[in-house]
Amino acid sequence: MPHLNLEYSDNLRDLNVDVLLLRLNHALVGSGQFAEELDIKSRAQAFAQYRVGTAPAERAFAHVRLAILSGRTQQVKQQLSNSLLEVLREAIPAQPGLDIQLCVEVLDIDREPYAKLRLPG
Amino acid sequence: MPHLNLEYSDNLRDLNVDVLLLRLNHALVGSGQFAEELDIKSRAQAFAQYRVGTAPAERAFAHVRLAILSGRTQQVKQQLSNSLLEVLREAIPAQPGLDIQLCVEVLDIDREPYAKLRLPG
Amino acid sequence: MPHLNLEYSDNLRDLNVDVLLLRLNHALVGSGQFAEELDIKSRAQAFAQYRVGTAPAERAFAHVRLAILSGRTQQVKQQLSNSLLEVLREAIPAQPGLDIQLCVEVLDIDREPYAKLRLPG
Repeated sequence: MPHLNLEYSDNLRDLNVDVLLLRLNHALVGSGQFAEELDIKSRAQAFAQYRVGTAPAERAFAHVRLAILSGRTQQVKQQLSNSLLEVLREAIPAQPGLDIQLCVEVLDIDREPYAKLRLPG
Repeated sequence: MPHLNLEYSDNLRDLNVDVLLLRLNHALVGSGQFAEELDIKSRAQAFAQYRVGTAPAERAFAHVRLAILSGRTQQVKQQLSNSLLEVLREAIPAQPGLDIQLCVEVLDIDREPYAKLRLPG
Repeated sequence: MPHLNLEYSDNLRDLNVDVLLLRLNHALVGSGQFAEELDIKSRAQAFAQYRVGTAPAERAFAHVRLAILSGRTQQVKQQLSNSLLEVLREAIPAQPGLDIQLCVEVLDIDREPYAKLRLPG
């Protein structure tokens, strides 16, 4: 916890995903909501098979799903989603001819059945 | 919003995913539940690593997860899942020797912390 | 139902995913919570694009998300997550120089709008 999944359409060709993930993680650390930086587990997936809407226009999306242990207030969640959306906005500029949608969703992980083990290596 | 994720086992070899995604999106537009067709962001992923059950039989699955902003009634959600299941059924015929499971799940996106930005291009 | 998604960083190079999925499914069958073994639909995805935390250390994760129809008690869910975590632990040994996090999350699928069809083949 937290778990972050970035899903994006693969027509966002110039996206530097490694840099973006690091910036998303820094935004989460900067929120002060998470005790240890290594708790933040982020991953990204490009989709080659996608369809935005039904019109034949060229469209793209980047969607962040942030899953955090239950118990935080709506205000904290809104601050988290706004800060992550700002990171997406900085990383993904508007492109002529491409309609891009950026989204951030925050969802709860049920705290009680969450199980975790760390193997420090 | 809405976000649709189609996950399927890659032994559904004849599946035309582009056509299927478009039909799923048309079903969502036809539901009248969503203001703009371009809001519908659907993507598909084939899994090469999967296991259905524990028996050594040849099995397949296609699973749609539809995530919509919270607030809709159970009746509306059931109509949405039934119409999406019907689209799956039309796209994926029974195959001798292959046990196929088709599933549709509808889940809420917490409305308040959802953040979105459109870059029209 | 149930649906199990295993997500892992692709630096867990020696992981035998086929064996792991089968063992996870056997743990679920052994729980006695699910009527038919073929109901268990598990899939795995390796991520090449990931970032754990912000430090430059070498880190890995394996995360199981188990989605089950709503209605089970917290005690049952905890038993499920503990047994799945134990399977992960057995499959993924500690490695010198690699900090590994293993996690299991259990979440509810809203029962009413869940739609399913089986094509026995």
